[in-house]
Formats: sequence, structure tokens, C-alpha cells
Amino acid sequence: MELSAKQLAAILNGTVEGDENAVVSNYSKIEEGKPGTISFLSNPKYEHYLYTTEASVVLVNNDFKPTEPVKTTLLRVPNAYLALATLLKLAENKKKLPVGINTLAYVSPKAKVSPEAAIGAFVYVSDNAEIEAGTQVYPGTFIGENVKIGKDCVIYANVSIYDYCTVGNNCILHSSCVIGADGFGFAKNADNEYVKMPQNGNVIICDDVEVGASSTIDRGSMGPTIINRGVKIDNQVQVAHNVELGENTAIAACSGIAGSTKIGKNCTLAGKVGVTGHVSIADSCILAAGTNLQHGIDQVGQVYQGTPALPFANAKRSFVVYKNLPELSRKISSMEKEIQELKKLLQNNN
Amino acid sequence: MELSAKQLAAILNGTVEGDENAVVSNYSKIEEGKPGTISFLSNPKYEHYLYTTEASVVLVNNDFKPTEPVKTTLLRVPNAYLALATLLKLAENKKKLPVGINTLAYVSPKAKVSPEAAIGAFVYVSDNAEIEAGTQVYPGTFIGENVKIGKDCVIYANVSIYDYCTVGNNCILHSSCVIGADGFGFAKNADNEYVKMPQNGNVIICDDVEVGASSTIDRGSMGPTIINRGVKIDNQVQVAHNVELGENTAIAACSGIAGSTKIGKNCTLAGKVGVTGHVSIADSCILAAGTNLQHGIDQVGQVYQGTPALPFANAKRSFVVYKNLPELSRKISSMEKEIQELKKLLQNNN
Amino acid sequence: MELSAKQLAAILNGTVEGDENAVVSNYSKIEEGKPGTISFLSNPKYEHYLYTTEASVVLVNNDFKPTEPVKTTLLRVPNAYLALATLLKLAENKKKLPVGINTLAYVSPKAKVSPEAAIGAFVYVSDNAEIEAGTQVYPGTFIGENVKIGKDCVIYANVSIYDYCTVGNNCILHSSCVIGADGFGFAKNADNEYVKMPQNGNVIICDDVEVGASSTIDRGSMGPTIINRGVKIDNQVQVAHNVELGENTAIAACSGIAGSTKIGKNCTLAGKVGVTGHVSIADSCILAAGTNLQHGIDQVGQVYQGTPALPFANAKRSFVVYKNLPELSRKISSMEKEIQELKKLLQNNN
Repeated sequence: MELSAKQLAAILNGTVEGDENAVVSNYSKIEEGKPGTISFLSNPKYEHYLYTTEASVVLVNNDFKPTEPVKTTLLRVPNAYLALATLLKLAENKKKLPVGINTLAYVSPKAKVSPEAAIGAFVYVSDNAEIEAGTQVYPGTFIGENVKIGKDCVIYANVSIYDYCTVGNNCILHSSCVIGADGFGFAKNADNEYVKMPQNGNVIICDDVEVGASSTIDRGSMGPTIINRGVKIDNQVQVAHNVELGENTAIAACSGIAGSTKIGKNCTLAGKVGVTGHVSIADSCILAAGTNLQHGIDQVGQVYQGTPALPFANAKRSFVVYKNLPELSRKISSMEKEIQELKKLLQNNN
Repeated sequence: MELSAKQLAAILNGTVEGDENAVVSNYSKIEEGKPGTISFLSNPKYEHYLYTTEASVVLVNNDFKPTEPVKTTLLRVPNAYLALATLLKLAENKKKLPVGINTLAYVSPKAKVSPEAAIGAFVYVSDNAEIEAGTQVYPGTFIGENVKIGKDCVIYANVSIYDYCTVGNNCILHSSCVIGADGFGFAKNADNEYVKMPQNGNVIICDDVEVGASSTIDRGSMGPTIINRGVKIDNQVQVAHNVELGENTAIAACSGIAGSTKIGKNCTLAGKVGVTGHVSIADSCILAAGTNLQHGIDQVGQVYQGTPALPFANAKRSFVVYKNLPELSRKISSMEKEIQELKKLLQNNN
Repeated sequence: MELSAKQLAAILNGTVEGDENAVVSNYSKIEEGKPGTISFLSNPKYEHYLYTTEASVVLVNNDFKPTEPVKTTLLRVPNAYLALATLLKLAENKKKLPVGINTLAYVSPKAKVSPEAAIGAFVYVSDNAEIEAGTQVYPGTFIGENVKIGKDCVIYANVSIYDYCTVGNNCILHSSCVIGADGFGFAKNADNEYVKMPQNGNVIICDDVEVGASSTIDRGSMGPTIINRGVKIDNQVQVAHNVELGENTAIAACSGIAGSTKIGKNCTLAGKVGVTGHVSIADSCILAAGTNLQHGIDQVGQVYQGTPALPFANAKRSFVVYKNLPELSRKISSMEKEIQELKKLLQNNN
């Protein structure tokens, strides 16, 4: 599909700066931009590529101010990254699974599956499960008893959803993620052996949630583990029993949240973050990549980093000194000597 | 099911402090306790909730001493958390898979599956595999050749067990865990390319072991990887080839143990712990959350923390100073100046 | 199979030092060596076992110089570990899946599967997928539309490969790994909610790549995520969208690479390593276990360690001081006092 800068501006509600007849038929990254493609600039680290890119059109934010002459045609929009999402959506060629129950699937006669849902081969739908219209379930996925899945979800291949868990509307669950496995709870008996604490709760996933590949969300021991509306979870994230994640919170890959912790709305956990159990984190907090947080956060909008975690500015400052510790240590040793010499001098003087 | 405090005391071998006719029909967390429910107090962090909870009965340890007046009825037991396990077990409504081989499963004619085992749909049981009575295998699970699985195990959906691995009695394997994949071993050839080291060993999982969702336990290269009796492994834990885990050791989520390391009995690895390869850790050691241990531990009962790991008390003390490093650094600078001034003064004096 | 030291020397192009008629019929680890077995010494940490092992023959490198008398028969080869790989390969008793399409598999009539490929039960092969000769696909694996898989690959049970991804020749994908799930990309709209960035790219896996159990490699948002020839990826590794991994780079378990990062050839990421997004790492670099790298590396062959990462020698030196921070802090306090005393003395003197 060919579109001119002018046509794109109409679609995206933007304004053209340059040749409004520039035509594009594909996408490219700005660092690899080719003629006839549209690219975008959002991350300032990539700005220098703008001045040399051969992409015919580049999406930029309305408030972007070039610091060098620009040869390509700019398409100014309120939010370049969001505009890109709109364009990529147009280009997406994802086929939907055919509606209906594949003859190689098993659906319990006691389950309620909408005739508008798509159930792939080798999918197992247990007794009393419910799946609403528009939802696609890819091959090899297991859906336990009394599981409820809303409308227009995509459940990819080899997902496992344990009994009594619920998934809202418009959710995406990627392959091999596991929803509702037992929380990790044991009591020790008199012989110092572990006795399993039954995990009688479930997992409640609200609307518009995405869960990445191989991520695991455990069921509560009593009561639910709750993933609120709009939460985005990347791959290989572990969410333990009775955790609650607030709306629109995003958790990048390889992170883990220990049991009974509550994380507020609009928080960001960058990758490889660990959060201890039984604490609360206020809204809009950010935990930098690699952080291990061992306590709660009361105030909204805090940024933490490190292991154990410190407020971001403190973490930076301490680390600057850490890098120079050997030098500091030498300094201290030489100061010690100087002090001893001064002492001797003074004693001699007296 | 309604039970009075008196009846519960009989079941749990406890003593009532308060109204022995208080009746409960459900469970609640102490912080959310409602009338007609039983709750428990085990973690001291939650003690303050005891004095305001509306739960009708609260399980506490025999030695618990309230520090404020208690309005609810206390049920004193030797171990409140263990007593809770007993009660939750009564309330568990987990249905068992129906005994027998589902018509949509494949079981090799050379496999030996007990007629008292339950094999779900889309399960694949390979040649010469053996599965004993009372074991349930959920849909989508793969059981390799010559695999042996004992009695009364639960193998959840989409588990993969490679050839020649063995699982004891009363084990639980959660969804998407992988038992017996190849260890990560390669030799470099003269062209500096990797040559795969065949992984000819297996995995031996003893009785009463639980393995969490998406956890991976690699087969040995020569000889077995061994998970001894009573070991509890949380989600997303990686156990490399030829590791041995001692009895009743517990490993929380997102931890990884490198190859050939031996961990003793009754150890606890809190979440996100890494342990280097080819070392031994004595019994009853604890590695705090986020710890990366780069050496073995000879003495029993040691506690380590940090990256690289230090003995717990040292880690704490070093971190206290770390937080103040910028202040310390400023102090050193000002001391340097003072020393220089003192020197000048002394020189002038002389 | 029994082989004498002399016969083994012929197979491995080695030389015998000791009894060339010593016969072995099995393998053992050097620390557990039994008569009638062959062992190997490669890791110097294990050298002391050589002098007491009961293994009848031990493989050692040509340049190995014993420091004590050796009773066993040595078999000297250019590379003991590589020679072991050759021997273990001989001993491997891995059966191949039977060639052909299992009657319980589903293969789209639009897919092209070589008659020399082996497709197991409950495998789903989507429209337009291609699978070449010699490749084995274990039960429960999902292969998406337009996926291409080369020759002589082994795809273990319950793997998921999303649409349009490609896998080269001689690759091994372990159970529950996920190839081509959506990258983690979202734009925020005016209401501060996440809008999914379509992930229209794919994953390209070149020849001779191994991917561990439960590892995840996300598809690119635009363009591919690329895993070049000979890359070895351990279990539970996360590779984000648009990453590129250079030839023969090895990544140990529990590591994660954030989006758009390029890692050079022959790099080693020891376990639990994190690498930030949008950076480049030069060839032959090493990231020690537990490292979190927050920047790129320009120079080849660098070694980094720590969180945040420092050059290896610096990290070691800083950590040595870190361990002594409490002592250092006390020293500073006492120096402060001494300086104040010196000041007073001098003032009194004047």
C-alpha cells in the first residue's frame, strides 16, 4: 500500500514539513531508513540518525526541534510513537484463528464456549469453563475447570490456566505462560519437614492485560491474586500468590514479585527487578533495571535503584564513590601516615 | 460447613481463649477479617491487625503474648501456620482427574501405566515409561522414554519430562516445568566453535518434591542431577546439570544453581538467588533474596547476602556505610585540607 | 562396549602414558572414578582427584604436567574436554523419533513437510510452514504460519514457534521455549494508558543454534530479532525484540537482553546477566555471573562484572574495599578526632 505524506498526515492528524507528495510503502528503523519508507524518531538517542536517514518520511513529535538541517520530510504529530502504533496496526497481517471449535480440540460438554470464539486443535477446555465471543485459543492450551475468559482475548499456544482463574476482555496471554499454579507456601511440622499450605484462592486478570511468554502468576492461598486493568507483563515474570498489581503498571522481563505485595497504579518495573513480599508500593513509582527492593514505598512517584534499593539519586551518588573506593582507601592510608607524622613533629616541638 | 471454636480446638488440638461458641464458616486474611471467618496470626508484622480484626476466631501460637486487649476469640495451637494448613486442606475443593487413560491421550503399548493412574487428553507417554497408582497427569504433558513416575503425583498441564528421568512418590510438578533437558555443556574446537557435550545423564527426583511452574531441571552430563526428598522448588527456578539438592531444601522463585553444585539439607534460597557452579553449600544455610554466591559454604547454618555475597551481618554493615559514601567522601576531602593546613601551620611554627 | 587405552588413543588421536591395555567400559566423574571407567581432567580445580582416582584411564590435555605421582593411565589428547565430547557422543543412546507424520499430529495441507522429517503426536503445523529433512518435532509443539525450519533440527516437546519465524539447520530447541512472541512495546495515549505497538517483525535463528528450556526470543517490532550461527542459549534466557546475537556467543541461564541491543561474536554471558536495551557490545566480551550492564562496550575482549557493571579488575578492587567499609568508616572517625586534637595542640602551642 502506497501512501503520501499528505495522506498519512490525514490519517494521523499531523502536519507535513517538507515534501507532502513523498510516497512510502513500508516501514524502517531510522538507523536503517531506505527511500520509500517511513520511520520515526522518539528516543532522543537516535536523533543524529534523522539528519542522514534515507527514509522518505519521518514521524516526529510536534515539539521536536531539529538541531541540524533536515533533508527528509517530517510528519509532525502529537506523539510519534503512538502514531507509529497506529500505522503498524494498519500493516499488521495477523490472521485470526477460524471461529469455532477445531475437531481436534476437547471441549467439555459442561463448558460454555461462545460460537464466536475460536478454539484450536489440542486445546483442552474443562468442565464449567466459559469462553466469550471473539476470543482465540491457540493449539496446546489447557483451560481448567470453572475458568472464565472474556471477549476478544488471544491465548497463544501451550498456555496453562488452572481451575477457577478468570481473564477479562481484550487480554493477550503469550505462549507457555502459566496462570494460577499453586503459590509457594509451606509450614514446617515438628519433624522440620515442609507441609504444603493449600492454595485455595485464584487469579483474577482484568481487562486489557498482556502477559508475556513463560510468565507465571500464582493463585492466592486465601483470596485472589489480582492483575488490574491495563497491566502489561513482559516475558519470564513471576507474580507470587496474593500479589495485587495496580492499573496500567508495566513489568519488564525477568522480574519477580514476592507474595502478598501490592503495587500501585502506573508503576514501572524495569527488567530483572525483585520486590520482597508483604509490602506496598505507591502509585507511579519506578524501579530501575536490576533493582531488588526490600521494603515498601509510601510516596507516589519515587524512583529506586540497586541491591538493596536506594532512592535513585542516592544510588547514583553512592555508586560514583564506590567506583573510586580503591583510590579513597589509598587516600585514607596516606592521611593516616601524615597524621602520625604531624603528631611526632608536634611532640618533638613540645 | 460451620464449625465452632470448640470444635476447631478439638480438630487442631488447641485451646480456646474467648468465646468457645464463636462459629466460623470461611477463612479470611487477618487484615481483611470478617465476622463468621477464621483467620491466623503467624508473621509478627501483622500482629497489629489482631486487635482490630473482625474475624470471629484467630489462630495463634501457644506462646503468643498479646500486647493489647484482644476482642476476637483466640484459638491457641502449637503452630498456627501448620494448623491453618490443616484447615485449608479440609476446605480444598480440588477435583481429581478421572482414573484411567483419556481416549485423546497416547500411551505407548510398551509403557506400564497403573490402572489407578489418571492420564489426561493430549498426554503423550513414550515407550517403556512407567506411571504408578494414584498419579494424575494433566493434558498436554509429555513423558519421555523410560521415565518412571511414582505414586500419587500430580503432573500439571504442559509439563515436559525427558527420557530416563525419574520422579518419586507424592511429587507435584507444575505447568510448563521441564525435567531433564540437556545441560549447558560445550567444548571449543580448533576453530573456536562450540561442540556439544552430550548430556547422557538424567534427573532423579525423590519423594515429596514440588517443582514450580516454568522451572527447569537439567539432566546430568554423566550421572544424575539429584533432587532429594522433600525439596520444594518455586516457579522459574533453574537447576543445572549434575546439581544435587539436599533434603527439605527450599528454593524460592527466579533462582538459578549452576552446574555440579551441591546444596545441603534444610537450606533456604530466597528469591532471585544465584549460586555458582562446582561448589558445596553446607546444611541449613540461608541465602537472602537477590544474593549471588560465588563460592561454597563449609559451615552449617550460615546466612549470606549480596552480590558478591558476604556473611549477612557483614553485608548489612557494609551497606550501611555504602549508603553514606558520598558523605564519607566529602569528609575525607575536608580532612585532607585540614591536614594540609596543619602541615603549613607546623612548618610556619618551625 | 569395552575399549582399551590403546584403542581409545587411536579414536581420539592421543598418546597413552601408563598401561595401554587398561580397559574401560563406562564413564565416570574424576571425583567418583571407579575401576573400568574412563574419566577426564579439564577444570584445574579437580586436579587433586587425579592422584587418588580409581578410574582406569583419565583424559588430560597434552600440556598437562602432573605435580604428584600418577597411578592411573593417562590418555593425552590436544583437548581433553573435546575428546570427552567425542566419547560421550559414541555412548549416547538417544533414539530418534520415527520419520513421518504421527497420525495424532495435525499438519496443514498447505504446509511443506519433508517425508524425511519426524512429526510427533499432538504437534500442530500451520499453513505454509516448511520443515526440512532430518528434523524431529516432539509432541505438543506448535509451529505457526509461514515458519521455516531447516534440516536435522530437534524441536523438543511443548515448544511454541510463532508465525513467520525461521530456524536454520542443526538447531536444537528445548521444551517450552517460545520463539517469536510479541516484543514488549507500548505507547502511552493521552489518557496515560498503554497502546500496544504491533510487533510485525519476526525471529531469524541461523544454523547450529541451541536454545534452552523455557527461554524466550521475541519477534522484532519492525524487522527481525537475529540469532546468528553457533549461538548457544541456556535455559530461562530472555532475548527481547530486535536484539542481534553474534556468532558463537554463549548465554548462560537466567540472563536477559533488552530490546534492540546488539551483542558481538564469541561473547560469553555467564548466568543471571542483564543487558540494557539499545546498546552494542563488541566481540569476545565476557559478562561475569550476576552482572547488570547499563551501557555498551566498544572494545573487543572486555570483561565486566557487577551492578552497575564495572571493568572486571575495577569491580574486584572496589569490592575488596567494600567488604572493609565498616573498618574504613571507623578509621575515618578516629582520624577526624586526631585532627581535631592536633588542631587544639597547635592552637595551644601558638
